[in-house]
Amino acid sequence: MTVVEQSINKAVEEFNRLDEKITHFSSIAGLISWDQKVIAPKKGRAEFAKATGTLMTEHFKLTVSEEMGRLLDVLSSPEAQVTLDDEMKARVRERKDFYDRSKQIPEDLYREYAILTSQANDVWEEAREKNDFSLYLPYLEKIVDFKKKAVEIYGYEKHPYDALLNEFEPGLTVEKLDPIFAKLRETSVALLKKIQQSSNKPPVEIFEQSFSVEKQKEFNRYILPIIGFDMEAGRLDETVHPFAQTVNTGDVRLTTRYLENNVRSAIFGTIHEAGHGIYEQNVDKKYEGTVLQEGASFGIHESQSRFLENMVGRSESFWKYFYSTLQTHFPEQLKDVNLDDFYRAINAVQPSYIRVEADELTYNLHIMVRYEIEKALIAGEIETKDLPTVWNQKMQDYLGITPDTDTLGVLQDVHWSFGGFGYFPSYSLGNLYSAQILNTIKKELPNFEASIENGDFSEIQSWLREKIHQHGKLYTPNELIVRVTGEELNAKYLVEYLENKYSKVYNL
Amino acid sequence: MTVVEQSINKAVEEFNRLDEKITHFSSIAGLISWDQKVIAPKKGRAEFAKATGTLMTEHFKLTVSEEMGRLLDVLSSPEAQVTLDDEMKARVRERKDFYDRSKQIPEDLYREYAILTSQANDVWEEAREKNDFSLYLPYLEKIVDFKKKAVEIYGYEKHPYDALLNEFEPGLTVEKLDPIFAKLRETSVALLKKIQQSSNKPPVEIFEQSFSVEKQKEFNRYILPIIGFDMEAGRLDETVHPFAQTVNTGDVRLTTRYLENNVRSAIFGTIHEAGHGIYEQNVDKKYEGTVLQEGASFGIHESQSRFLENMVGRSESFWKYFYSTLQTHFPEQLKDVNLDDFYRAINAVQPSYIRVEADELTYNLHIMVRYEIEKALIAGEIETKDLPTVWNQKMQDYLGITPDTDTLGVLQDVHWSFGGFGYFPSYSLGNLYSAQILNTIKKELPNFEASIENGDFSEIQSWLREKIHQHGKLYTPNELIVRVTGEELNAKYLVEYLENKYSKVYNL
Repeated sequence: MTVVEQSINKAVEEFNRLDEKITHFSSIAGLISWDQKVIAPKKGRAEFAKATGTLMTEHFKLTVSEEMGRLLDVLSSPEAQVTLDDEMKARVRERKDFYDRSKQIPEDLYREYAILTSQANDVWEEAREKNDFSLYLPYLEKIVDFKKKAVEIYGYEKHPYDALLNEFEPGLTVEKLDPIFAKLRETSVALLKKIQQSSNKPPVEIFEQSFSVEKQKEFNRYILPIIGFDMEAGRLDETVHPFAQTVNTGDVRLTTRYLENNVRSAIFGTIHEAGHGIYEQNVDKKYEGTVLQEGASFGIHESQSRFLENMVGRSESFWKYFYSTLQTHFPEQLKDVNLDDFYRAINAVQPSYIRVEADELTYNLHIMVRYEIEKALIAGEIETKDLPTVWNQKMQDYLGITPDTDTLGVLQDVHWSFGGFGYFPSYSLGNLYSAQILNTIKKELPNFEASIENGDFSEIQSWLREKIHQHGKLYTPNELIVRVTGEELNAKYLVEYLENKYSKVYNL
Repeated sequence: MTVVEQSINKAVEEFNRLDEKITHFSSIAGLISWDQKVIAPKKGRAEFAKATGTLMTEHFKLTVSEEMGRLLDVLSSPEAQVTLDDEMKARVRERKDFYDRSKQIPEDLYREYAILTSQANDVWEEAREKNDFSLYLPYLEKIVDFKKKAVEIYGYEKHPYDALLNEFEPGLTVEKLDPIFAKLRETSVALLKKIQQSSNKPPVEIFEQSFSVEKQKEFNRYILPIIGFDMEAGRLDETVHPFAQTVNTGDVRLTTRYLENNVRSAIFGTIHEAGHGIYEQNVDKKYEGTVLQEGASFGIHESQSRFLENMVGRSESFWKYFYSTLQTHFPEQLKDVNLDDFYRAINAVQPSYIRVEADELTYNLHIMVRYEIEKALIAGEIETKDLPTVWNQKMQDYLGITPDTDTLGVLQDVHWSFGGFGYFPSYSLGNLYSAQILNTIKKELPNFEASIENGDFSEIQSWLREKIHQHGKLYTPNELIVRVTGEELNAKYLVEYLENKYSKVYNL
C-alpha cells in the first residue's frame, strides 16, 4: 500500500467513526424532539430544552469540527475520490455540503441569527393570535436581511434564491423551477375556474356529521399495516400538529390528530405521515449509523407522503377496498352514502385561506403564492412590509379569494419565523415527483389499480422500496427521479393527473 | 482580586459549564432509557442501543476528562475550599468522588468488565430460565474477581466490602452496618416465628379474586395526585419491571404493572414508585443542571419510596380514607370485606422465595441473605461456586424455607450480572431510614395520622420537602439523616415499628 492509500484508508476509518457519532446524536435528537412534542409532561419541557440545546450544540460542533474539515479535505481530493465507492462518495458529498455551508457563516452572525429566530417564533405566535402583522414585521425584516446576507456568502450562479432552495432540494434552481411552476399554476388556475363553473358538485355535506374519535382511531390503526407501515418498527400517537419522526429504520413515529367533526383530517393525515414513515422504515439497514440513513430530500420525501395520501389514498381503487370497512365503523353516518358519492366528496375542490386544509388542486396555488413572495423578497424586488398586500393580491389572482385578516393570510405559516425560506416549494415538488412516479409505476406494474382494489399493497411497496426507499440519501434528488422515471422534474404528469381526476369528479 | 482568587473564579465558571453539560447528558440518558424500556418499537431498539452507547461514552469521557481533573484539583485545594459555599463544595465532592474512583480503574480492565457484564446479563437470563447455575457461574466468578481487584484499587480502611457499599451509600462501612443489620435480622426472625405461631391470621384469601385492570388503572391515577405526585410534572406508564425515571424535576416518569389476579401489586408498586418520584419532583430547582439534582443516595431514595409505600400506604389511617373508594371500584370483590380485614390482609406476613414479592417483615431477611453472601464473597470467605448451597442454607436459617430450584433462589436477582455488589443493602437501609423518619415526623407533626385519615398529604409532603427532598445531593446520607432525625442510622425504630405493627395485625 502506498503512503497516499494508507492516509486515505485511515481517513475513511476516522470518517466512519465521526459520521456514526454524528448520526447517533441525530437519532437521539429525533427521539427527544418527538418525546417533548408528544408525551413529555409540560413542567419539564423548559428545563429539558436546555439539555436539547446542549446536545444540538455538540452535534453541530462535530459536523463543523476541525477533524471533519481535515477528513473531508482528504476524502474529496481527486486521489481519494477515484478509490471510493458510491456509498462513501455520497456520504462525503452530504457531510461536505453541510460543512461548507455552515463554515461560511461567521460564528457571531450565526449566534445572532439563532437568538433572532428563537424570539421570532414567539412573536409570530403572538402576532397571529392578535392578527397584527406589525408586531412580526421587525423580526421578519431582520430574518430576511440575514437570508440576503447568507445567500451572498453561500454564493449562487444565477438567482440568489437558488442558494436557499438548495438547502432543501440540492441542485434545484429558479431557472429550472420557474417554468415548471408556471405551467402548474396556469393550468391549475384554469382547471379551478372550470370546476367552479361545474354544476356537478360532490356531496361534501356528508362530512358535516359527528364521527366518534374512538372509531376513527380504530380505523386508522386498521389501515396502517395494510398500506405498508410496520407497527413493530413504529408508533402512532396524537398531536395537534401531525408529523413523522424517525429515530432509526426500526423506529419511525407517526402522529395524527382526531377531530370529531372532520373524519377526513385523521384518515388522510395518517396516510400522509405513513408515506413519510414507510420511506424511512425501508432505507437499507447498511446505511444506519451514516448520514445516508434519511430520505433523499424534502421534495422526494414529500413525494412519498403525497403519493400515498393522494395518488393512492384518494383514489377510487383505494376506497373500493376500504369503504365498506369505513361504513362498518360509521354505520349511522355512512349507511346511505354510496361509494361514488364518498369518492367524489373526498376529492371536492374548494378554495380556502389555509394551506394545510387545502385540497389537492388548490394546495399548489398556496405554494405558488409563497414561492413567488420568497423569490421576490430575496431578490429585493419587494419589501417585507408589503407582504400582506402582496399576499392578498396573489390569493385573489390564483384562488379568487382574499383573506379578511392576516391571521388567515400572511401570518398563517410558521416557516418564516424559523428562517425556512426555500422550504415551501418542497410541498409542490412532492406533488410533481409523485405524479411522475405514478406514471412510471402504472407502466411497470400493470396491476397497480387492481392490487389496491384488493387491499394488496405488497407489490407497490416493494417497487417503491427497490426504486426509492432503500437508497436513502445515496442519490441526489435529481439523480433519483431520473433513475426512477427516466425524466427530470417536470409538470406534465401532475397536470395530466389533476385534469383527469377532476374531469371525472366534476364531470367536466 | 488576587491571582489565586481569579484562578478559582475561572475554575468555578468552567466547572459550572462542564457540570451542566454532564447533567444535561444524564438527563437525556434518563429520557432515552425510559423510552426504550417503555414505549420504543421493538425493531429499533438494537440499533438505538448503539446511539445510547455513543451518548454514554461521551458522558463518561466528560466525567473523567483532563479538564474535569484540572478543575477538581483547583476547586478541592484548601485555598479554594475556604472560599466555596456549601452547594459548590457538595458539587465538587460528588464529581470528585466519581472522578477519583473511575480514574483508578485501568482503561483496559474497564473495557473488559463492560463486555463481561453485558454478556453476563444475557447468560443470567438464560440460566434463570433453564434453572442452571452452572451456565452463569463462570461469568459470575469473573465479575467477583473484577470486584475483588476493584476494591483493592479503590482502597478501604477495614473491610474490602466497604469500597463497594460506598458506591451506593457514601460513607457507610461494614463495621457500622453489621450490628445494625444483626439486630434487625435477629428481631425479625424472632418476630416471624411469633407471627407463624399466631392463630389470628389475616384473611388474605380476599385477594384471590379477579380485579379489572381498567379499574385498577383508574384507582391508581386517582390516588397519585392526592398523595403528592404532580401529574403535570410526570407520567404513569406500564412496564413488566416497574421503576421511576427522572428526566428533570419537572419530568419524573413512573411505571407500574397491573395484574388481574393481584390487586395489591399495582397499588403498592405505584405508591412505592411515587415515593421515589415525589422526592425527585421536589429537589430545589436551583440544583437543576448540576450533579446535585438527584436524591442523596440509593438508601435515602429507598427511604422515600418505602416510607410512602409502607409507613403511609400500608397504614390503617391511609385506608380509612381510601378504602371506600377502592370498594366503589371493586364493589363485587370487596363489598363484604370490612376495613379491618382489608388492613390486616394487606399486612399479612408469609415467607416466600422471591424478594420482590416479599412482605414488609421478611423483605429485610431476603436482604440479609444477600448482604452476608456479598460480604463473604468479596472477603474471600466463600467461593462463587458455593453460592447455591450458601443461599439455600441462609434462606432456611432466616425464613425457614428452602427454594426447590436456583431459579427461585440464587438466580432470581439481576443485580450481580451487572456487577451491582453493594446495591442490595440499600433496600434495607431505606426501611431503616424510613422508620427513623416516621418517628421524627410523628413528633414534629402531631396531626400526622389524622391528616392521612382525611386524605390531606400537604403538610406531610411539605415536611418531607423541607427536610429531605429539596436538598437533592447537597448532604451526604449520614449528614442528612442526622439533620432530619438527630440520630445516625440505627435499627431501633424499624424494630419497634415492625413489632408494634404486627402485634396489632396478628394480635400477638
